[in-house]
Amino acid sequence: YYGQEIKRDVGNLVKWLFLAVVVGCVTGAASTLFSFALKGVTAYRKANEWIFLLLPVMGLIIVFLYEKIGKEDGGTNQVLSTVRSQDDVPLLSAPLIFISTALTHLAGGSAGREGAAIQLGGSIANQLGRWIHLDEEDRHVIVMCGMSAAFSALFGTPMAAAVFALEVVSVGVMYYTALMPCMIASLIASQFAAGMGVTPESFHVVDIPALSLETGLKMVIVAVGCAVVSIIFCMVLNAVAGLYAKWLKNPYIRVVVGACLVIAVTLLLRTDEYMGSGAELIAKAVETGQTDTFAFLWKIILTALTMRAGFRGGEIVPSFCVGATFGCVMGNLLGLSPSICAACGMAAVFCGVTNCPITSILIAFEMFGFRGVSFYLIAVSISYAASGYYGLYKNQTIVYSKYKAKYVNRHTRV
Amino acid sequence: YYGQEIKRDVGNLVKWLFLAVVVGCVTGAASTLFSFALKGVTAYRKANEWIFLLLPVMGLIIVFLYEKIGKEDGGTNQVLSTVRSQDDVPLLSAPLIFISTALTHLAGGSAGREGAAIQLGGSIANQLGRWIHLDEEDRHVIVMCGMSAAFSALFGTPMAAAVFALEVVSVGVMYYTALMPCMIASLIASQFAAGMGVTPESFHVVDIPALSLETGLKMVIVAVGCAVVSIIFCMVLNAVAGLYAKWLKNPYIRVVVGACLVIAVTLLLRTDEYMGSGAELIAKAVETGQTDTFAFLWKIILTALTMRAGFRGGEIVPSFCVGATFGCVMGNLLGLSPSICAACGMAAVFCGVTNCPITSILIAFEMFGFRGVSFYLIAVSISYAASGYYGLYKNQTIVYSKYKAKYVNRHTRV
Repeated sequence: YYGQEIKRDVGNLVKWLFLAVVVGCVTGAASTLFSFALKGVTAYRKANEWIFLLLPVMGLIIVFLYEKIGKEDGGTNQVLSTVRSQDDVPLLSAPLIFISTALTHLAGGSAGREGAAIQLGGSIANQLGRWIHLDEEDRHVIVMCGMSAAFSALFGTPMAAAVFALEVVSVGVMYYTALMPCMIASLIASQFAAGMGVTPESFHVVDIPALSLETGLKMVIVAVGCAVVSIIFCMVLNAVAGLYAKWLKNPYIRVVVGACLVIAVTLLLRTDEYMGSGAELIAKAVETGQTDTFAFLWKIILTALTMRAGFRGGEIVPSFCVGATFGCVMGNLLGLSPSICAACGMAAVFCGVTNCPITSILIAFEMFGFRGVSFYLIAVSISYAASGYYGLYKNQTIVYSKYKAKYVNRHTRV
Repeated sequence: YYGQEIKRDVGNLVKWLFLAVVVGCVTGAASTLFSFALKGVTAYRKANEWIFLLLPVMGLIIVFLYEKIGKEDGGTNQVLSTVRSQDDVPLLSAPLIFISTALTHLAGGSAGREGAAIQLGGSIANQLGRWIHLDEEDRHVIVMCGMSAAFSALFGTPMAAAVFALEVVSVGVMYYTALMPCMIASLIASQFAAGMGVTPESFHVVDIPALSLETGLKMVIVAVGCAVVSIIFCMVLNAVAGLYAKWLKNPYIRVVVGACLVIAVTLLLRTDEYMGSGAELIAKAVETGQTDTFAFLWKIILTALTMRAGFRGGEIVPSFCVGATFGCVMGNLLGLSPSICAACGMAAVFCGVTNCPITSILIAFEMFGFRGVSFYLIAVSISYAASGYYGLYKNQTIVYSKYKAKYVNRHTRV
């Protein structure tokens, strides 16, 4: 009996170590390429500002691609449902999301890139699983592996990437079966990316006060504010989607009108700061403690207008930007270090829109270092409790009530 | 509709912030007192070595106390079941575990103190919940709050303490309803304890190599070894319990014979290093990279002989000691920094016996710092996958299979 058990344990370990290494290398490589592509198009966009006016054209190309060859592509939601049920991510999703995210960033749409990474990784890993004839249950695990490896290579945050894949699908349930494969794949992917010259995202928090009754209470206020902002973010995304669907039924017209709105708002604001993922706004908020008061609001509006018009990329990096700029404003208002408030705001809004508290805490460690730990804990846990059942992904479920210790298993509100 | 929702959100937030502060202060204070008591008795034991020979007498007192007034006390397992079902921790548990753990440490039994902290915090918080007439579901949350606050005050690791309470009862399920209350209570308890002069447990890892193919693979081997050691630890505890139950049915005789065995083994080994929690062995292994080759084995045997004879305290800190000393030996064998191997061994064996990977990673950060993160991730995730369904707590369930992505919901093997 013990012999059999040892055989099963060792066999399982060796199999998943091997698969994790393969997935880590393959999706890590794809994600590294993706990272360089995004850097390239962003640099080009900055050097050639006129290209922003081509946003409607890029939109048309993206919609055309998805209408013609990507009809069955359900985006990030589909990847999430693949983890939980018998669904599939078509292999075609990988090049589609790669190209359309690059085009979105080339023309300066306000969009992230983690959604792209998740789809890229999920799609490649799913295909790998099909080729080697993994059964249904193992395919769930390999898809999580691919998600986390691609995320990890792009951001240089292996720990948060691995836990995100385990945590995001069903909030309150941790798919620990995939813990080891995801961790190993993430570590390998991030090492691979770092070796190829992708620098991990990290920001230097300049001023971390001591935790006291005063600073702690101020952080509670910042965190409640972040929870409200994350609800607003979800509501605005949803409202814009509703308006588009009501008034602009044709996807081609929708993307052109959406792009024109983005151009109009941007010209009014006279800044290119909100284009792309907004990493510079995050850096400014965290590292200098400075930001425009309504930056968070404009980022929300421009992201909703861009993403819901049909552009691709993801909403998470914009949510980072919204959180960091809002936190920074709150810090300046309350007289608490705006730098740590920006860092906490980023983690807290991320937690509010994804309902992934552990990932939020870990991402703060990996991006900002470990020193501000007490503040990250306060910000993330309060934001989780106060952000209700809103979320970015309609295929995410919240398994246990946020208010009572009981089973609810409800879908998030998008 | 929105008005109602906002009211519910705000009400819930304020209620739990308030309760968390109360629980954090009350159990934090009790746990601080407990910490000083343990320090006092340990210092006395070191100054007066003869007291070790009174171990059988202390055992008799402990058994007498539990036979007379603690019949309904189920120890840590009962606290765990209170979180999940309609169970109760009697208030009497708090003073009982306080006194009996102090007596165990006074006479140099090989035992920990986290089990005591969990029972102390769980019992006090449960009573608080009863006094203010919390309903069933809220009482689960407040018990988790108490567990984490007491753990946090004792070890100075608020993050790991909070996540441990959420994670340990049902592995694979995170009781996020309690996230905010537990985090806040833990932070307050640890600040309280630190303010009273309890120094947080932390060890300085002296040599952290870069992650490469070679160091990574060596760490995989160390982690597999740790998983095996954690299985052996659980099996030895169980085997000793079985032998005691078979040959020594009378609890008074059992505790006297057990104590005499502990004395005999200790006299044979001619060292007092294995007495108490073994924190000095951990410090030596992590900070100097040195340890006796079979230290881990003796610690396992002495802990099993002590704890299963009827002494109190807990098995977790001994498991830290077992992991650190074993990791150190493996590091010296493999030519990988014994210091980082000791730190990883501690986290990996803790993960193996408690099946709590996130807590294990966080505890490594809080005790050893963030720098060795890649190694902690490898060690903990491999140990989780390779340690099978063994565990310290018979009331713990593993909700998802470790081998296939499916629901199993089975009890751990003790």
